[in-house]
Amino acid sequence: MKMTISQKIIAYHSGRDYVEPGEFVFADVDLALANDITGPVAISEFKKAGGSEVFDRDKIALIPDHFTPCKDIKSAELCKALREFAREQRITHYYEVGRMGIEHALLPEMGLVLPGDLVIGADSHTCTYGALGAFSTGVGSTDLAFAMMTGKCWLRVPESMKFEYVGKPNPYVTGKDLILYTIGDIGVDGALYKSMEFAGEALKFLSMDERFTMTNMAVEAGAKNGIMEPDEKTLEYARKRGKREFKVLRSDEGAPYVDIRTYDVSQINPQVAKPHSPDNVVDVYELADVKIDQVVIGSCTNGRLEDMRMAARVLKGKKVHPEVRLIIIPATQEVSLQMVKEGITEVFLEAGAVVSTPTCGPCLGGHMGILAKGERAVATTNRNFVGRMGHPESEVYLSNPAVAAASAVLGRIAHPEEVVRG
Amino acid sequence: MKMTISQKIIAYHSGRDYVEPGEFVFADVDLALANDITGPVAISEFKKAGGSEVFDRDKIALIPDHFTPCKDIKSAELCKALREFAREQRITHYYEVGRMGIEHALLPEMGLVLPGDLVIGADSHTCTYGALGAFSTGVGSTDLAFAMMTGKCWLRVPESMKFEYVGKPNPYVTGKDLILYTIGDIGVDGALYKSMEFAGEALKFLSMDERFTMTNMAVEAGAKNGIMEPDEKTLEYARKRGKREFKVLRSDEGAPYVDIRTYDVSQINPQVAKPHSPDNVVDVYELADVKIDQVVIGSCTNGRLEDMRMAARVLKGKKVHPEVRLIIIPATQEVSLQMVKEGITEVFLEAGAVVSTPTCGPCLGGHMGILAKGERAVATTNRNFVGRMGHPESEVYLSNPAVAAASAVLGRIAHPEEVVRG
Repeated sequence: MKMTISQKIIAYHSGRDYVEPGEFVFADVDLALANDITGPVAISEFKKAGGSEVFDRDKIALIPDHFTPCKDIKSAELCKALREFAREQRITHYYEVGRMGIEHALLPEMGLVLPGDLVIGADSHTCTYGALGAFSTGVGSTDLAFAMMTGKCWLRVPESMKFEYVGKPNPYVTGKDLILYTIGDIGVDGALYKSMEFAGEALKFLSMDERFTMTNMAVEAGAKNGIMEPDEKTLEYARKRGKREFKVLRSDEGAPYVDIRTYDVSQINPQVAKPHSPDNVVDVYELADVKIDQVVIGSCTNGRLEDMRMAARVLKGKKVHPEVRLIIIPATQEVSLQMVKEGITEVFLEAGAVVSTPTCGPCLGGHMGILAKGERAVATTNRNFVGRMGHPESEVYLSNPAVAAASAVLGRIAHPEEVVRG
Repeated sequence: MKMTISQKIIAYHSGRDYVEPGEFVFADVDLALANDITGPVAISEFKKAGGSEVFDRDKIALIPDHFTPCKDIKSAELCKALREFAREQRITHYYEVGRMGIEHALLPEMGLVLPGDLVIGADSHTCTYGALGAFSTGVGSTDLAFAMMTGKCWLRVPESMKFEYVGKPNPYVTGKDLILYTIGDIGVDGALYKSMEFAGEALKFLSMDERFTMTNMAVEAGAKNGIMEPDEKTLEYARKRGKREFKVLRSDEGAPYVDIRTYDVSQINPQVAKPHSPDNVVDVYELADVKIDQVVIGSCTNGRLEDMRMAARVLKGKKVHPEVRLIIIPATQEVSLQMVKEGITEVFLEAGAVVSTPTCGPCLGGHMGILAKGERAVATTNRNFVGRMGHPESEVYLSNPAVAAASAVLGRIAHPEEVVRG
């Protein structure tokens, strides 16, 4: 029986030769992760269920990334609970503030997720790791607690949808634009509980960082996971960072897809998702009269090194518009350090931007740049629901880092070429 | 009649030849400042009192530094109020996030406070500017509103106390240690409503940044202001940064002091103020068994470039203790930029420290590193009252940046020589 890459990974982790879309299976997890918001809940469930020792202290990752450095006493108490559990259980992959990053950027960077892995995380953007050819998905805190105890999770094997990208992307059209375009096409429930499989020749033009952006946002179309078959770039990344063997799986010729869509990327312009939904997508050109108060470049979606390089190319020698706050949040400590070494941090500081320490921060309205009533932001983040970045009457427009940087300079939504040529 | 430097500045700004300690005067202010916490209150009072236009838009400084980048909707609303007033009144010295710093570090750096000035601010650490030979003091938001309308403030002319520092400071004994030692000597109410005048040959060994640290903490002994006579270092600083004339005033020989104390700084070790009072001061050696959870290097007290250089000398090639979070907060955007250029940021990131954007943050329990119940921090900040940095059952030890950096490496309170020699 033919299988997609998602089916194959699930089958492999369930000790089966074949799994059928729609069936329920128990699967072994290679890594189970939680953060400072979901971790304490999972830990509490773990203890309530009589858990005394985790199934494997090397296969759990606990990362205080959401409201850190702690924004208030409540977040400090949550972090303390996470930290104490990590010490008590001698969790190998606990990453303390100052040595960490946003979970979904950090774990691939540390080589903890590799092709063929099955990963669950108590965070909806766990789907990010699909760019490595892994099956990864977000779960609730009780599922996470169960996995911490047993090393297993239950899954309904998802049906797969295939998205083929052909042609060559235009300048300033990135992985972010392709995924926004796709979500715009199918809608926020367009892939409900499905596996979104991204394929096609255009992907080879995308850096690993851009690919992570695409799989990261699969959940914004309701998908169970986003995934790509590993290619040479993937394998190079995995070999460089990983410290163990991994299994390269690919979809069979003739594997079952409930839908196949093809996009010619040469016809796609930089995309922006207007408030208040990630599928409310238009060409950047349509929004040139939208004035803004704040720009955020960062998050598990677009806080990686390539994102920072892209923003720096636009901002070099420019100044942030006097009426705009530009908040730049490297996703990990490694990204921060590399930005300093490459002169990127200097470009940002000279432009008049905030350069933050890694945190999820404003993406989910946590801290580090919350919006007041009536304020409008451009952000490279993943969601622009009502009140997502602050006041219920604030607005968020989602874009790629180059569009965000250009908008910060001009004080309104802008195509990067307006700034770089100007 | 003989006068101290504080009397002279007040007399000069009141159009008088002489003012007597104890008398009330109306004085002209050279600068009136407020932040994102106190500014909105002052603005509201300004409007309630019928204020329509500020007395001089060049002589007001509004700086959103306390809870910025905004930590929540409430702080975002406060910043919005400050920003809108600044735009409406066309305030020259409004400094937006990304182009600002902690007010008391920023204003001298921008050359906005100069020797002989009289400055009031709706923040208790406004006394910082005394290191420039200016009279500066904290006021309430209504006094600030009055100054914004009229350019004037009322003052009770303070009696002066003189603190003479003789000898040469030992290595790792800084301005912070001298002021902690002094507060330890006289107590937190030892200079109530007095002017603390710092003098003596030892001051010439102190950088301007160390001097700001000393005058900054005058308020921790209850003083109305802290002040030093300008010397060559002061004048060099003022000439380099200022863009207007200034008046160098000095205390008369035989001016009246209600108390004169002399300290031989060669006998002083690095000092630490234990919880929960800045006058609970002991030698660092006495605390070598105190384990810690967090270290904060920053604030209007010790977030300047010399502080960062000092911390970097200790941290170079070292790692932060695995059970400690080290949070480093440059006081201004200029400090951030210079840290990057000098390789200091790289040292901190490689050590495993958080390098934040400028903010008052955790110093006052605002954000960016709040303590949970039972946690203990070493901080270069100015106050260690109960709950100052978070939970009422957390603890803060105050120290200089070198002691703080060494403590971060060893996970317990430590003298820098334990790390630098080790």
